[in-house]
Amino acid sequence: MEILQSIADNLRRIKAKKPLIHHITNYVTVNDCANMTLAIGASPVMAEDIGEVEEMVSFASALVLNMGTLNSRTIESMLVAGKKARLMGIPVIFDPVGVGATTLRRVTAEKIIREVCPSVIRGNMSEIKIIAGLQERIKGVDSVASTEDGEQVAQELSDKLASVIAITGKLDIIALGNRLVRIDNGHPMLSQVTGTGCMATSLIGCFCGVTADCFAGAVAGVMTMGLAGEIAQRSLQGAEGIGTFRMRLFDSVSTMMPEIFMEAGKVSKA
Amino acid sequence: MEILQSIADNLRRIKAKKPLIHHITNYVTVNDCANMTLAIGASPVMAEDIGEVEEMVSFASALVLNMGTLNSRTIESMLVAGKKARLMGIPVIFDPVGVGATTLRRVTAEKIIREVCPSVIRGNMSEIKIIAGLQERIKGVDSVASTEDGEQVAQELSDKLASVIAITGKLDIIALGNRLVRIDNGHPMLSQVTGTGCMATSLIGCFCGVTADCFAGAVAGVMTMGLAGEIAQRSLQGAEGIGTFRMRLFDSVSTMMPEIFMEAGKVSKA
Amino acid sequence: MEILQSIADNLRRIKAKKPLIHHITNYVTVNDCANMTLAIGASPVMAEDIGEVEEMVSFASALVLNMGTLNSRTIESMLVAGKKARLMGIPVIFDPVGVGATTLRRVTAEKIIREVCPSVIRGNMSEIKIIAGLQERIKGVDSVASTEDGEQVAQELSDKLASVIAITGKLDIIALGNRLVRIDNGHPMLSQVTGTGCMATSLIGCFCGVTADCFAGAVAGVMTMGLAGEIAQRSLQGAEGIGTFRMRLFDSVSTMMPEIFMEAGKVSKA
Repeated sequence: MEILQSIADNLRRIKAKKPLIHHITNYVTVNDCANMTLAIGASPVMAEDIGEVEEMVSFASALVLNMGTLNSRTIESMLVAGKKARLMGIPVIFDPVGVGATTLRRVTAEKIIREVCPSVIRGNMSEIKIIAGLQERIKGVDSVASTEDGEQVAQELSDKLASVIAITGKLDIIALGNRLVRIDNGHPMLSQVTGTGCMATSLIGCFCGVTADCFAGAVAGVMTMGLAGEIAQRSLQGAEGIGTFRMRLFDSVSTMMPEIFMEAGKVSKA
Repeated sequence: MEILQSIADNLRRIKAKKPLIHHITNYVTVNDCANMTLAIGASPVMAEDIGEVEEMVSFASALVLNMGTLNSRTIESMLVAGKKARLMGIPVIFDPVGVGATTLRRVTAEKIIREVCPSVIRGNMSEIKIIAGLQERIKGVDSVASTEDGEQVAQELSDKLASVIAITGKLDIIALGNRLVRIDNGHPMLSQVTGTGCMATSLIGCFCGVTADCFAGAVAGVMTMGLAGEIAQRSLQGAEGIGTFRMRLFDSVSTMMPEIFMEAGKVSKA
Repeated sequence: MEILQSIADNLRRIKAKKPLIHHITNYVTVNDCANMTLAIGASPVMAEDIGEVEEMVSFASALVLNMGTLNSRTIESMLVAGKKARLMGIPVIFDPVGVGATTLRRVTAEKIIREVCPSVIRGNMSEIKIIAGLQERIKGVDSVASTEDGEQVAQELSDKLASVIAITGKLDIIALGNRLVRIDNGHPMLSQVTGTGCMATSLIGCFCGVTADCFAGAVAGVMTMGLAGEIAQRSLQGAEGIGTFRMRLFDSVSTMMPEIFMEAGKVSKA
């Protein structure tokens, strides 16, 4: 498919251009996000003080906002950096971690979406349904929502917000306007390691840092994580578990060749 | 022993119920705590803003409070979340990291113990002795205290606070009222990796999330970490050191079968 | 060379004395810094609340200040802890991460240098040139500066500030007064893992915790990281990438024998 070729090309561009990806993110998985950004060939920078985020983002090729461990200080920084990025035409990738778990998270996500207008919103099915106003509650940060109506939810929310909507799970769904694809890469072990969602969001940021087509960027980021999960899982032997699997995710992304997308990428129009 | 059977049963319950474990913890080892919680089969959530901790904890099966990198903001959140958990009957596991190192830590630990009444307090010998008022100072966060009187210290403190006291070290001691056991699993390499104490505390939280018997939960969490250390160390070859050892801790916990406790658990009544 | 013998001796001293190294550092690489400090045989403590940093540092053998994710709260703590350390004669190792990226970072670095007078300043070529007033801007946190005039820059800045200046990169340069050496250990993969600079700074802290000769301490810390990179890279096989490489860095440092410096250390007077 054409989109697989574009992913391969964009991976080459990342390695050539080394785009700077500014993150305001949670302290649980921040190290993983930085290492994943480096693994694909981009350059991460994490900065969150209100006194520097506007200046920092102005040099970036993309901005990743992740509200995994939000607090009053970082919420303010996310809004300020996000608005600056929007003004400068820098793509903003938003990860509404655990948006349904508390009122603070729901209100913050709504504010970020309204004021920043992210280019891409990536979440699991529960998180996206909460944002779409279709679900009330999430227990913690893991998805419990039904996935049957996922494609419709993604497309309608994308239309409403004019953002790429990326839903990750057993089957990934990416929507923008009349563009809608399913990605069938990945492995269940990805849900047993913290931060694989956050890392997918960072990878989307890396791809959006080298292409203006944020739909293609979202497909690429999500597929990269899925393929890394498949490769990592296949490599496991004997008593190896999630510790080894997690390490191999970084191995897989850092050694991933453009050709792998053409060979192993499973994407279909919905 | 009967307790080994109960640990095996509770491990099965964790995997079936996937309890949500709310952490307010330090940013040094938070990723390890999240991954260890996932490795055993539970679901971690980290949230610390005062505006959401009460709401978050109300859905949790246990609350872990770890003061490794406390600050005025998180101290407040720990107290608020802890009191809410207490009110709702949700078990609170408290890790008084480095309590003897500074006045701020000693005062904070006292406040948390007084106001939250944790179900379990886990620390090394120095930390527990500081809390018991038997020692003055710790250099940093590592234990330097004599362990000879450990069982008596644990039992007396447990009586005084009506909490499970779990002292981890070369020999682990768990006390509650007239219940007192020694656990002889583990390996010295565990002390060469940061966060193995924090991870043990998280594992106690996972077990206390599926059983009302916090004494059994504490024994299970501490023993899981000890067995993981043994398995990880035995797997090392050639030039492998603490990097590989650390990864294998996660492998070991994620692949740990209930039977392992019956076969390799070393617990004795004191 | 004499200096290699001193490094070997100081490594033995670290393992014997287990110096406490107080860090006020960023939340991206803090876990790696703690584990690297443990790997070499020292004892890390991370504490940053203004209410405890003076007390904490007073027990430490060295203080590491790293401004990777600075904020108004931690800037204040760095200054307070740094001034206390200076007063007590405890060596301060300063890592001005991304100093050229924003005004906040440049102003903060200048303040720390002026008020704390660090014993050692470690950065990449861009960071050191910014501090020397020779360069205007950095994109993010990676170096883009020319390295041709590195030795002169290091020596002049060292003279001006009366601090050891350690520039790390393809070729490392360490300067103090009329002492100036080049270190030719390391591997390009070190730049593909986040935090290898921060870890080098922590290792300098460990060595400065056992010797009053901070120049020797800086050479030792930088060389340890370089040798670890070489050993880790040589061990890679097949599809192993930065995940495995990163883990092996910890393996290499935790199993490093004093003799390795005599055999593989590449240092030359400049």
